[in-house]
Amino acid sequence: MMRLSQLVEKLGGELHGADAEVTRVSSLDGATPDALTFLTNPRFKNLLVDCKAACVLLKAADAQDVTVPHIVTDNPYLYYARAAALLHPAPAVRAGIHPAAYVDATAVVAADAEVGPGATVCAGAVIGAGAVIMPQAYVGERAQVGAGARMYPQSCLMAECIIGERVILHPGAVIGADGFGNAWADDHWEKIPQLGRAIIGDDVEIGANTTIDRGALEDTIVANGARIDNLIMIGHNCQIGEHAAMASCVGIAGSTRIGARCQIGGAAMIGGHLDIADGTIILAATAVTKSIREPGVYGGPIPAAPQDQWAKNAVHLRRLEVTNNKVKQLEKQVAALLARDTQEE
Amino acid sequence: MMRLSQLVEKLGGELHGADAEVTRVSSLDGATPDALTFLTNPRFKNLLVDCKAACVLLKAADAQDVTVPHIVTDNPYLYYARAAALLHPAPAVRAGIHPAAYVDATAVVAADAEVGPGATVCAGAVIGAGAVIMPQAYVGERAQVGAGARMYPQSCLMAECIIGERVILHPGAVIGADGFGNAWADDHWEKIPQLGRAIIGDDVEIGANTTIDRGALEDTIVANGARIDNLIMIGHNCQIGEHAAMASCVGIAGSTRIGARCQIGGAAMIGGHLDIADGTIILAATAVTKSIREPGVYGGPIPAAPQDQWAKNAVHLRRLEVTNNKVKQLEKQVAALLARDTQEE
Amino acid sequence: MMRLSQLVEKLGGELHGADAEVTRVSSLDGATPDALTFLTNPRFKNLLVDCKAACVLLKAADAQDVTVPHIVTDNPYLYYARAAALLHPAPAVRAGIHPAAYVDATAVVAADAEVGPGATVCAGAVIGAGAVIMPQAYVGERAQVGAGARMYPQSCLMAECIIGERVILHPGAVIGADGFGNAWADDHWEKIPQLGRAIIGDDVEIGANTTIDRGALEDTIVANGARIDNLIMIGHNCQIGEHAAMASCVGIAGSTRIGARCQIGGAAMIGGHLDIADGTIILAATAVTKSIREPGVYGGPIPAAPQDQWAKNAVHLRRLEVTNNKVKQLEKQVAALLARDTQEE
Repeated sequence: MMRLSQLVEKLGGELHGADAEVTRVSSLDGATPDALTFLTNPRFKNLLVDCKAACVLLKAADAQDVTVPHIVTDNPYLYYARAAALLHPAPAVRAGIHPAAYVDATAVVAADAEVGPGATVCAGAVIGAGAVIMPQAYVGERAQVGAGARMYPQSCLMAECIIGERVILHPGAVIGADGFGNAWADDHWEKIPQLGRAIIGDDVEIGANTTIDRGALEDTIVANGARIDNLIMIGHNCQIGEHAAMASCVGIAGSTRIGARCQIGGAAMIGGHLDIADGTIILAATAVTKSIREPGVYGGPIPAAPQDQWAKNAVHLRRLEVTNNKVKQLEKQVAALLARDTQEE
Repeated sequence: MMRLSQLVEKLGGELHGADAEVTRVSSLDGATPDALTFLTNPRFKNLLVDCKAACVLLKAADAQDVTVPHIVTDNPYLYYARAAALLHPAPAVRAGIHPAAYVDATAVVAADAEVGPGATVCAGAVIGAGAVIMPQAYVGERAQVGAGARMYPQSCLMAECIIGERVILHPGAVIGADGFGNAWADDHWEKIPQLGRAIIGDDVEIGANTTIDRGALEDTIVANGARIDNLIMIGHNCQIGEHAAMASCVGIAGSTRIGARCQIGGAAMIGGHLDIADGTIILAATAVTKSIREPGVYGGPIPAAPQDQWAKNAVHLRRLEVTNNKVKQLEKQVAALLARDTQEE
Repeated sequence: MMRLSQLVEKLGGELHGADAEVTRVSSLDGATPDALTFLTNPRFKNLLVDCKAACVLLKAADAQDVTVPHIVTDNPYLYYARAAALLHPAPAVRAGIHPAAYVDATAVVAADAEVGPGATVCAGAVIGAGAVIMPQAYVGERAQVGAGARMYPQSCLMAECIIGERVILHPGAVIGADGFGNAWADDHWEKIPQLGRAIIGDDVEIGANTTIDRGALEDTIVANGARIDNLIMIGHNCQIGEHAAMASCVGIAGSTRIGARCQIGGAAMIGGHLDIADGTIILAATAVTKSIREPGVYGGPIPAAPQDQWAKNAVHLRRLEVTNNKVKQLEKQVAALLARDTQEE
């Protein structure tokens, strides 16, 4: 519970209205008298009329005629994120190793770190100050977990790999499994040992069941501040730039570089050995098969259509070469007709 | 082992032929004299000639001239499902908490529930009557598991989330990980606390390594009877309607509503903040970027073609605007030629 | 550490230059005087000038004028794979069952196999000679793990399923979860019991968080030597041929047969009940909706384009039927004009 004036003291902004106490953040239409809510899209301003919130976060431009108590701020969405973190803090760290955890005698666990029941910390691993290894998480041999990091249940950090400070690994995330390396030997594949590591910078968040493979010879790198959603695959030797963000189900094949601050939509697929320029935006469900040197917005998916309509189009899609040849032929014929016409005159 | 007459007593249908004993269900061509098999597609009726099964399930329309013993029923496929459940019951629940499980002292586990070795049940969690928490499954703080539910090994139910009665979570399924919420702060992302829950109704089945995120402010909802296959991603705040079914590798971005009884093919990708009408069918590998208000069958994938042929078409695909302009130009020119022709006559 | 002459003795090839000692393999530009490196692409031959490696693996055709010590071999990439395996051997098996593992009294674990802390081996399971069940891995009732196999942390082998000799299951891989089988019963789905197994042959490698479902009635089969990357879904009753290789994020719906030695690019999606000929190559992000009877290279994805350009094309894409009709009409009109022209002459 916090007074609005306390929030303003910590986060800035200008309070208009009573200095009430708030206990939670909420959506506009789910707001109760103990709630702090926010308006980011002026389209929803009409919802303010009946809004029961203790306070609404909004921009100066949206504040006119607003009678509900409100805090004016440049970025209501960011303010909401920060207020939510203050009002709903993460559970406190329970320092110590749970008796039902398995921690190798040669692992080094900071005194104020937490290791939950069923967690495994292998030989030579290092767990930083205030880090939380939740139940059933796995930290491999000589792996390192940065200060303040949180490994959720069933997340997995393989041998020698590193996650930085305040990194979050959601359940089922696998960091540092072997990359996909095979050499063909006449009549069968032989495995190429994967000798690099996966190195995750500070303040990175990695979603549930996402996999980031270790490098083949060099390391796979995810730079500081990147945001990686669920069920994403990042192949061996990739380099993901600082503050890059990618939505769920993205696949990135090996040895590709994603530039800083790139934004990649869900289910986009990016080939191997490519270079994507800093700040590039790739739309959802787009297939990227060549490097992108110029930042910009790139797309390519075919939007869904009623099946009978799409089925007809799909036939022509496979005959585009033929259609194009017909158009060329028509152009020649019409040009000839027009030329003759002109001659006749 | 059951007599056919016992099956008919429980499941209905009309037995034609000897009241044999059956011990198992099987495919048509794998049938042995102890097997119950089924015919759903008349195309395979010729397989009945050599069929060694004790009995075949089939429709009245397919029963003519059939000499193998058979049970006539309106829906042989459903009859087969039910007979299989009777002949091959799930393993019995072994009531009790295994000594190698970790169950917090404040958790409430029904006396006839089963908690396997290596399972974790956190503080305040509730495990319903006859539920099975298999080895290495995880039930977070204050989470609730409905009566008769089964959590397979390495499935994960995060804090405060709820699964209903008879829900099945397959291995690696993650219910209630944080949604993907980030606010941009000048030069970095800040995490938006994910404060809602994931609520799964009764009789829902969720596949291996599927992830269903918790809501940001409100809850993510999967309604009763939904069927969700493997490696599916359901983003925060989504609402999945009753008896909706989706095949593997589907991705659904945040805040989208999937109507009741929708059927979604494998690897379809559905954008965020959309509304898909009840009963809509979306074909495999289709990208849905707009709401669908009219139920129907929707598609969009490009079927595979030989690469040399496709490569030629792909070039034209990127020049459709140009081709279209040429056709427009030709139409004008031909119209002019035709007009002149007519004049000349 | 090995002498180059020892390598040649084991792996063949012709050493040109000093018989140095090497301790590791490395990339061309990361090479140090203790490293063995390799040249597979003549484009990078210029890097040899400054190369500090103890030795370079290369083809006879690339050996001219090379002054760095080198080993000439027909297949430098394969030689590198084998040398890497010799120089960087997998960690030795630590025979025995860790006291923090749970192994049912009726399971049979080979004396020289390793079972790590937090691993679960259920009733009737069989663990072969020299196999490694790493921490938190799960082996279900009556499942079988072949000699020399390695199950990484949090991998999961369900009841009755089998993995062959030297199989590798990476973290989070799930073998033998229930297939997606449902029968519609008027107003709800009923589950079809999944009674088959998943059978994985020898020398198969299966990536992190990949799921291979058990069969409905018959078994799901992955044949010897197949290579399956991360986050792949293989549906029930599929048959994957020997030495088939598929990159990450591939989805294969139920009952499909993938021929021997097929290569499937990342994020390709293959429908159910199809037959893909031996040796077929399917490019990344391709949707396969029909059987492929002729081996060859098949593709279909639309490459990404700048969004404003793509948006224009996408409009025409949905009007291909209309465009095509216009072209047909133009062809008729032009033919008529040409015919009249000819008559007039």
